[in-house]
Amino acid sequence: MKDDKITLDHGSGGRLSHELVAEYFVTALDNEPLKRLNDSAVVDAPSGRIALSTDSYVVDPIFFPGGDIGSLAVHGTVNDLAMSGARPLYLTVGFILEEGLPLSDLRRILQSMSAAARDAGVLIVAGDTKVVPRGKADKIFINTAGVGLLERDIILGGERAAAGDAVLVSGTIGDHGTCVLATREGIGFSTPVESDSASLNGLVNAVLDGTDGVHTLRDPTRGGLATTLNEIAKQAGVGIEIEEDAVPYREAVLGMCEILGLDPLYLANEGKLIVVVEGAQAQTALAAMRSHPLGKDARIIGKALADHPGRVVMNTRVGGKRIVDMLVGEQLPRIC
Amino acid sequence: MKDDKITLDHGSGGRLSHELVAEYFVTALDNEPLKRLNDSAVVDAPSGRIALSTDSYVVDPIFFPGGDIGSLAVHGTVNDLAMSGARPLYLTVGFILEEGLPLSDLRRILQSMSAAARDAGVLIVAGDTKVVPRGKADKIFINTAGVGLLERDIILGGERAAAGDAVLVSGTIGDHGTCVLATREGIGFSTPVESDSASLNGLVNAVLDGTDGVHTLRDPTRGGLATTLNEIAKQAGVGIEIEEDAVPYREAVLGMCEILGLDPLYLANEGKLIVVVEGAQAQTALAAMRSHPLGKDARIIGKALADHPGRVVMNTRVGGKRIVDMLVGEQLPRIC
Repeated sequence: MKDDKITLDHGSGGRLSHELVAEYFVTALDNEPLKRLNDSAVVDAPSGRIALSTDSYVVDPIFFPGGDIGSLAVHGTVNDLAMSGARPLYLTVGFILEEGLPLSDLRRILQSMSAAARDAGVLIVAGDTKVVPRGKADKIFINTAGVGLLERDIILGGERAAAGDAVLVSGTIGDHGTCVLATREGIGFSTPVESDSASLNGLVNAVLDGTDGVHTLRDPTRGGLATTLNEIAKQAGVGIEIEEDAVPYREAVLGMCEILGLDPLYLANEGKLIVVVEGAQAQTALAAMRSHPLGKDARIIGKALADHPGRVVMNTRVGGKRIVDMLVGEQLPRIC
Repeated sequence: MKDDKITLDHGSGGRLSHELVAEYFVTALDNEPLKRLNDSAVVDAPSGRIALSTDSYVVDPIFFPGGDIGSLAVHGTVNDLAMSGARPLYLTVGFILEEGLPLSDLRRILQSMSAAARDAGVLIVAGDTKVVPRGKADKIFINTAGVGLLERDIILGGERAAAGDAVLVSGTIGDHGTCVLATREGIGFSTPVESDSASLNGLVNAVLDGTDGVHTLRDPTRGGLATTLNEIAKQAGVGIEIEEDAVPYREAVLGMCEILGLDPLYLANEGKLIVVVEGAQAQTALAAMRSHPLGKDARIIGKALADHPGRVVMNTRVGGKRIVDMLVGEQLPRIC
């Protein structure tokens, strides 16, 4: 590349576009279906049910402790597939680049995507790049869509949660949101908070291999644990009760939330798993989660019940009850 | 909605996000897998090979004669799947919205996507919406990714073109590019040029049902006919020769190109099909294309040959030869 920044010519479909694809994308995301460079990638798929998911990533800043927009875009879609119990197989990726993006940033992001895809066991088989003039986007936006295979004979979903189920979470809450906010605002910590961004398909396998009676899996991203539990309560028509004492947090996250007046229950997580499972299986699920590195801090945090359907209530440390509602709007924009 | 514009709160993952999804997206793109509102959509897929494709759409303006960014986003990905010979089944859609986008524009775009999906016989089963602050995007960007099923026992691809093959095109060239440019710049025509944006899967079926020996299907979008033929020539290691007289154009397209110094061979098309087929099957393919409304103006425009591998040459009207190279850069940004 004679220039070290993205230009409109890189998005033209002409020779510079082809060079960008060959030198950057195909090199970083090396696999056979992608290398054929046809309009779509052709791959083998066993018969049965498949899961489809998509997410766009607009996180600001694009690099943060523990990850970047590229690894996040792989983790996020891998996780959405894993939440249905699917084995993630293939991703597609669409880039919208702002004119002027340093090519070194693009290369770093692609390498990060490549590593994340390898770790998760997925292939990025199709891609697209558009370039928009300076000021018409913000550095880089990434969309990933994914295909997963449902190999297990189970049906998972928010609507399957039932009264009597236990609610578990795989580890500390609010890490990603705190990390992005601190990085964006230049807030220093003595102990910096890293994003928890990670692919959860391995942890999901550990849970599903070891546990019967799993009803719902969710990763509490945008809107955090509070919003995700509200979604499940509304989908299933159950109440959810959680114990404030049981929800795990990093000290630095709690500290920052106190200073800034944020509620960590609403902060995004990008590598945490919520499991809703039959009450009798709660300890089995907990042990299965703890057997995996990403679940070593797993906790039972509450239960689903027939009372107050559609609502989430927290039993507070001081013995009170607090309704944990969905936020109307935005606590923290561009978190993912 | 109490406001008539997109706000950051619509992208928060909180209650306003949920209302937007329920009132706009689910209503417009009504189907069962989508309505379940889980992290991924679960659908049935017969066994065999599947095709995957993705494209992001950043066209400016977002509404133009003959279509809008929504219908374009459906047509484009349906077409990429159809080019591999796949039957398009499912799409995912990711929206990046700029704060301040009128909700009426969003509704109009969603209705257009819904109609385009219905016409093409595909379901939009999963979606995602992000909102970025004013000035960090331009109104609306859409990504679609698609899954198609390869039901036919054929392999298509640019690499399969062979010396002796005929090259056909389904109709007039440069309509979409001219339409978008004229709309953007406010250039009036006595006969306005409409975009040709359309789903080509029906036309592809007509060709493949009626013709043996099809090697390559392509839709000449960004970079136009010239770039697409160059891609095929390079992938297959063949030369391609086209007849200037045989390439069909609308008068208004030629007129505008003359005035503005643009070459219509490089202008985008969003509803045109290139077919590369064994020479002996050329007339059969032509008849099959002309049997479909979107192929009624189909023409045989040239052939693949062993000479000048990787290059495209045009026999001009005046009896000369012109090398039709790939453009290095950008003739027309944000055309799709």
